[in-house]
Amino acid sequence: MTETRDRIVDAAVDLFRVHGYTGTAMKQVVAAADAPFGSVYHHFRGGKQELAAAAIERAGVVYRDLVLGILDAEDDVVTGTRAVFDAAAAVLDATDYADVCPVATVALEVASTSEPLRAACDTVFADWIDTLAGRLEHGGGPPAAARSAAIAFISLLEGGFLLCRTARTPEAMRANGDVAVAVVAGAVDR
Amino acid sequence: MTETRDRIVDAAVDLFRVHGYTGTAMKQVVAAADAPFGSVYHHFRGGKQELAAAAIERAGVVYRDLVLGILDAEDDVVTGTRAVFDAAAAVLDATDYADVCPVATVALEVASTSEPLRAACDTVFADWIDTLAGRLEHGGGPPAAARSAAIAFISLLEGGFLLCRTARTPEAMRANGDVAVAVVAGAVDR
Repeated sequence: MTETRDRIVDAAVDLFRVHGYTGTAMKQVVAAADAPFGSVYHHFRGGKQELAAAAIERAGVVYRDLVLGILDAEDDVVTGTRAVFDAAAAVLDATDYADVCPVATVALEVASTSEPLRAACDTVFADWIDTLAGRLEHGGGPPAAARSAAIAFISLLEGGFLLCRTARTPEAMRANGDVAVAVVAGAVDR
Repeated sequence: MTETRDRIVDAAVDLFRVHGYTGTAMKQVVAAADAPFGSVYHHFRGGKQELAAAAIERAGVVYRDLVLGILDAEDDVVTGTRAVFDAAAAVLDATDYADVCPVATVALEVASTSEPLRAACDTVFADWIDTLAGRLEHGGGPPAAARSAAIAFISLLEGGFLLCRTARTPEAMRANGDVAVAVVAGAVDR
């Protein structure tokens, strides 16, 4: 049963990436997960909103760990930041600008209309900011500078996804990578 | 008839800000515009997608001119950049994090599913980047640096809207304002 629940959440993450929250129907999720229709309401008694909260939480962990994996593979956070933005530009280009985290899309869709989903997105972004700020502190930055740099890093990454997906070119992610590298270098005072 | 068309487009912009593109029904737009139902199909034979393209174009001009008005009121682009981010933080706080441009929301919703609307959003962002880069060039920046700084400025503003609306605090817009000021100052070499 847990496997079915996992498949449903993964299918929701995939569909939200392409169609957003409002544009995804429960029927589509069930079909994509190859699950019996009743199972989705068995696992998510709160319906689509509860499923979406689980999908946001899942996507938050997956994309956080993806970024951390790239960041931590480098010798320091400055070269790690360069690697993250280079990888983001490469993935966008290789996947026809489709393979992106759905959290930003859902956050903008629901910020003013669903308090539980806004809160779920807030938990994800707060976790990303805290985790990244922790890495920058470990790299030598004072806490306040590390936190501000982490916020700018995530804003430049999400703004890059927005502009690149819309323009279908990697230009913005490359320009933003230069800025993120300078911001992180400034925060750790390298 | 032009007035009716204008009212319909304005109503669509307002509804997209709160509910996004997919979450807004034509019936809601007609009701909010206080227009006869048939009028929307008279003015927009292409239906919701054609109306959305007009709403994106309208929002693009309105929000571009809003930013330029604040930027151009200051003595130089560096203090102007500070004023833009301060104003964005103040407006978010004063409007309960609701009064924002709908272009980013719609862009993320439709980037992978509607080519005409992706193109409409691309036209808006390209115009914003070109216009802002022009101001930075006029402020003394070389063209390539001005363009990169304009991309980062818009990414930091949109990323700030995303994080502030989700967290319901102005913190991210203030942190991103500091970075945008440094980026613009670097581009115009002040």
